[in-house]
Amino acid sequence: MKLDDLINHTCEWLRGTGPNSDIVISSRIRMARNLNKLPFPHRANKKQQEEILNKTREAIENSDYLKKTMFLELASLDNVDKQFLIERHLMSREHASKSNHKAIVISEEEIVSIMINEEDHLRIQVMQSGFNLFEAWQIIDRIDDELSAKLDFAFLPEWGYLTACPTNTGTGLRGSVMLHLPALVMNKQINKVLQVINKLSFTARGLYGEGTQALGNFFQISNQVALGHNEDEIIDNIHGVIKQLIEQETQARAVMMSGNKELLVDRISRSFGTLKNAHIISSNETVELLSMVRLGLDLGIIKDVERGLINELFILIQPAHLQKLKGEKLSSQERDVRRAAIIREKLAG
Amino acid sequence: MKLDDLINHTCEWLRGTGPNSDIVISSRIRMARNLNKLPFPHRANKKQQEEILNKTREAIENSDYLKKTMFLELASLDNVDKQFLIERHLMSREHASKSNHKAIVISEEEIVSIMINEEDHLRIQVMQSGFNLFEAWQIIDRIDDELSAKLDFAFLPEWGYLTACPTNTGTGLRGSVMLHLPALVMNKQINKVLQVINKLSFTARGLYGEGTQALGNFFQISNQVALGHNEDEIIDNIHGVIKQLIEQETQARAVMMSGNKELLVDRISRSFGTLKNAHIISSNETVELLSMVRLGLDLGIIKDVERGLINELFILIQPAHLQKLKGEKLSSQERDVRRAAIIREKLAG
Repeated sequence: MKLDDLINHTCEWLRGTGPNSDIVISSRIRMARNLNKLPFPHRANKKQQEEILNKTREAIENSDYLKKTMFLELASLDNVDKQFLIERHLMSREHASKSNHKAIVISEEEIVSIMINEEDHLRIQVMQSGFNLFEAWQIIDRIDDELSAKLDFAFLPEWGYLTACPTNTGTGLRGSVMLHLPALVMNKQINKVLQVINKLSFTARGLYGEGTQALGNFFQISNQVALGHNEDEIIDNIHGVIKQLIEQETQARAVMMSGNKELLVDRISRSFGTLKNAHIISSNETVELLSMVRLGLDLGIIKDVERGLINELFILIQPAHLQKLKGEKLSSQERDVRRAAIIREKLAG
Repeated sequence: MKLDDLINHTCEWLRGTGPNSDIVISSRIRMARNLNKLPFPHRANKKQQEEILNKTREAIENSDYLKKTMFLELASLDNVDKQFLIERHLMSREHASKSNHKAIVISEEEIVSIMINEEDHLRIQVMQSGFNLFEAWQIIDRIDDELSAKLDFAFLPEWGYLTACPTNTGTGLRGSVMLHLPALVMNKQINKVLQVINKLSFTARGLYGEGTQALGNFFQISNQVALGHNEDEIIDNIHGVIKQLIEQETQARAVMMSGNKELLVDRISRSFGTLKNAHIISSNETVELLSMVRLGLDLGIIKDVERGLINELFILIQPAHLQKLKGEKLSSQERDVRRAAIIREKLAG
């Protein structure tokens, strides 16, 4: 498998399957692990970074679960490649910013990705479509078991797993769920909902993580503290909070449908019409419009388009994906024209 | 012929034929005439108003050219009927505001309309599609000759025809041309152009006359002074000014097409997409979007729709037309939904 082959697959997080997939885009569990007796990446020298890279690579390549993965050193990737992986939610922006002895490991179905020498020696991510935290947890637990058998992880009985940032110390675990909450945005309840989320020690981020806005009514909700609870408690806790959010969004959608439905139909249909007819369009506008079309599909307002196609468009219209598809670098203006052409072509077919 | 039959015809001013019909919607000549020895309508008492109505009615019904017209006393019309005639540019708002001894005369093809007891005893209007002032003038001249043979018009050799407002005294003639100037609006030259127009003693109004905005990039240009020139000079003068405006708009369109054409295509296509998909839409938004689609047809950017259909929509989506079509009174909200449904239906077919 090569990096460019990924473009012909649908990302796991956009498959649109799994429980509650009308509201929950994807569930993700991330685990931080560090090798014993080696400094954290930002304190390690070149030799130590290389040692970390080699040791973890060997363990991954000899793991049953991970042997079919693609191992890419960041030094071998250009900027479009890196942006491409960020857009697919396989790699963090921070990881992409420097290349020294960093690597990224990706499983065939894009369910697993592992960043080596990011903030921690290993950042393991498991993604599942829909509301599927337990399955993601089972997969990451198995990977952790396999790697633990081959690597000596930094661990103190009274602290748990040690990590570069103290907020991750303990389980090293963070769970996050990507939600599509258009009705709570439209009825202006979203800020109140997010305030409650914060009080429960959860954070809400946008489609592309920390610092990104709530583009397209997408909210990534994750736990803030990894310490003081065991893994099952953490997963249960997130699960409970997300379940409440799903109920609130479901209720808000029902109210909209029984209230001024025509207003909703108008907004959704206009969004669809703009997508089918624009000749210049930014990625932000596209995501906002696709968000409305997705809601239209969920509510049965739009029927003449495949859900899979809409999910695919969320990612195909991102800057690096457009350039991968075209096979050349494109300026921002060229991308806006190319993006509109691809959307028209896909939605006409 | 009955009033309601008009809805099945295309108004003369929207036929979209005649010279320069890509830029000139319609040409109109209006003539003011008053009966000798009877006060102007706003000074006449009921008996005198009735006398004016009866005398002019008899003359019209015995005129060769006008015998096939429809004669409607305003007292017999409800508010929707009146609004319907205003929307079709057959009657002024002022005429509709009171019903006392007023009437409206309409020819089968809606080329001629005559208001009785408006500001003057007779306000004769002749409309032609496209840039066709001379033909309009020939028709109105013939009507004037026929009526002059039957009626004694107030006329003083040194002043010409007398009228209620001194700006109409002399020929009683006003010529006006409705132009579609989207390129001059988009390149922001329109205000400069209108300033020049004003200095030449012309006024620019919107789609629905005095006080209406330049909705949909439509501008109605007319002469301000009827005195001091004979009829041919007045017509020639308007013709010359309009010819220059047509050239400026043509040039502006060419510049847009050779410049950033994609930007123009984007705006036009989005407008078309919104019309085909909206479920709630105001008449103002519709006119703005139809204006873009009309430009798209003129420039060959839109091809898969009949020009006649777009012209028809300009009028069918007006409030009174929607109510006539439905056969019942509709609230503003109901009209916005009905309007969107009619547009979708017409553009899908």
